[in-house]
Amino acid sequence: MGERLQKTQKSQQRREDILASARELFERKGFANTSINDIAQACGIRRENVYYYYPSRGDILLDLVRPNNQQLVDGMARIIAANISPVAKLFLALQHHVKLFDRVALDTVTVGLRGIAHDDRLSVHKEVKPLYKGYEDRWVELIMEGADAGVLRRMENPKLVVFAILGMCNWLTHWYDPAGPITLDGIVDVFFDLIAGGLLDTSRLRQSLSKELAQLPEELRKPYEGGLSVA
Amino acid sequence: MGERLQKTQKSQQRREDILASARELFERKGFANTSINDIAQACGIRRENVYYYYPSRGDILLDLVRPNNQQLVDGMARIIAANISPVAKLFLALQHHVKLFDRVALDTVTVGLRGIAHDDRLSVHKEVKPLYKGYEDRWVELIMEGADAGVLRRMENPKLVVFAILGMCNWLTHWYDPAGPITLDGIVDVFFDLIAGGLLDTSRLRQSLSKELAQLPEELRKPYEGGLSVA
Repeated sequence: MGERLQKTQKSQQRREDILASARELFERKGFANTSINDIAQACGIRRENVYYYYPSRGDILLDLVRPNNQQLVDGMARIIAANISPVAKLFLALQHHVKLFDRVALDTVTVGLRGIAHDDRLSVHKEVKPLYKGYEDRWVELIMEGADAGVLRRMENPKLVVFAILGMCNWLTHWYDPAGPITLDGIVDVFFDLIAGGLLDTSRLRQSLSKELAQLPEELRKPYEGGLSVA
Repeated sequence: MGERLQKTQKSQQRREDILASARELFERKGFANTSINDIAQACGIRRENVYYYYPSRGDILLDLVRPNNQQLVDGMARIIAANISPVAKLFLALQHHVKLFDRVALDTVTVGLRGIAHDDRLSVHKEVKPLYKGYEDRWVELIMEGADAGVLRRMENPKLVVFAILGMCNWLTHWYDPAGPITLDGIVDVFFDLIAGGLLDTSRLRQSLSKELAQLPEELRKPYEGGLSVA
């Protein structure tokens, strides 16, 4: 093996070590609470060595979340383009988002608003902001397509609906435990139920309506026999 | 004025200065990215002086969010106890939660899971965990009361529904801008619409049903005139 190839392989290995240590730390402590020092210590190299591969923490984060982000965007594009009903698209889009749940990827969102060192914020922002913006736009498209087709309600502010749906999903980062009894599929089912059908129990309303109708006084029982003819 | 009283007043003032600086920093940079040092600098005192008043960052956070948390819990208790319909309770509970939106208070939740120094996490956890747990339980109660009354759908896992609703609201921390055009009242309206009625457009379904019924072939038009008598 040539010396040059060996050097490239060693460099590649080092990069992967840094990413693996960073993922573990970001997942456990969060991006905001992990320093380059922590990462260097975790993979047993010097701080300067980490900087040789990555100019900032933000660049490590970006390298980690890029595959997940690409999957998120590509999958959504496929769903939007599919020749299926808007309701099926809504279900698939929700499932796609929840199944790709990733605490570390969500750090790129939380990084956006508060308190991360300027250079980190800049590099992360520059790459993920347009990407997430495009992703949210696909969601708005989906909701509006459904409304145009007469299948979904036309909401006054579809963007707010999208923020509600994505927020519902992304908040998993604060309670979902992959080792716990609740599965992502179970979450998708409940969330879809809520988003699609809402909480108002129209079936029960129908039942109590039937009951009320059955107990109507005689003169109200068959109004159609009077004014409204069925023949 | 006695020397002792003066000292107490000065101490009280110092405490308020620390809290004000901490609130501004927590709001802007987030709890995770604010050190005791930052707070000391912001109010122009020495680090040791901050520690004299507060043993840890967590205790500062707790002092800040206590009034908001109490309001959250007390208001919810009043809503649950009120003699109003479950739908009205659902709307009021949602409004109550969104209107009390507070990024700094939400830091006590995010603090819970990841990467905050052990002593901070402990003091914050010990106080807010049972409080939020009780608050979530009131929400589950509300959802189940609505189901018992036949007004809300009976969901298999009401706790997941509650997490969905609270997540939808709490995610505001990542996109809501108090200086922006969208008001909290506007958000409550859209979120309630989504939670209560869902996205499926039953009114439009009724319309297309009417259309389809109007175009039925003759033999299907009045089946009730055959088997089903209305007389």
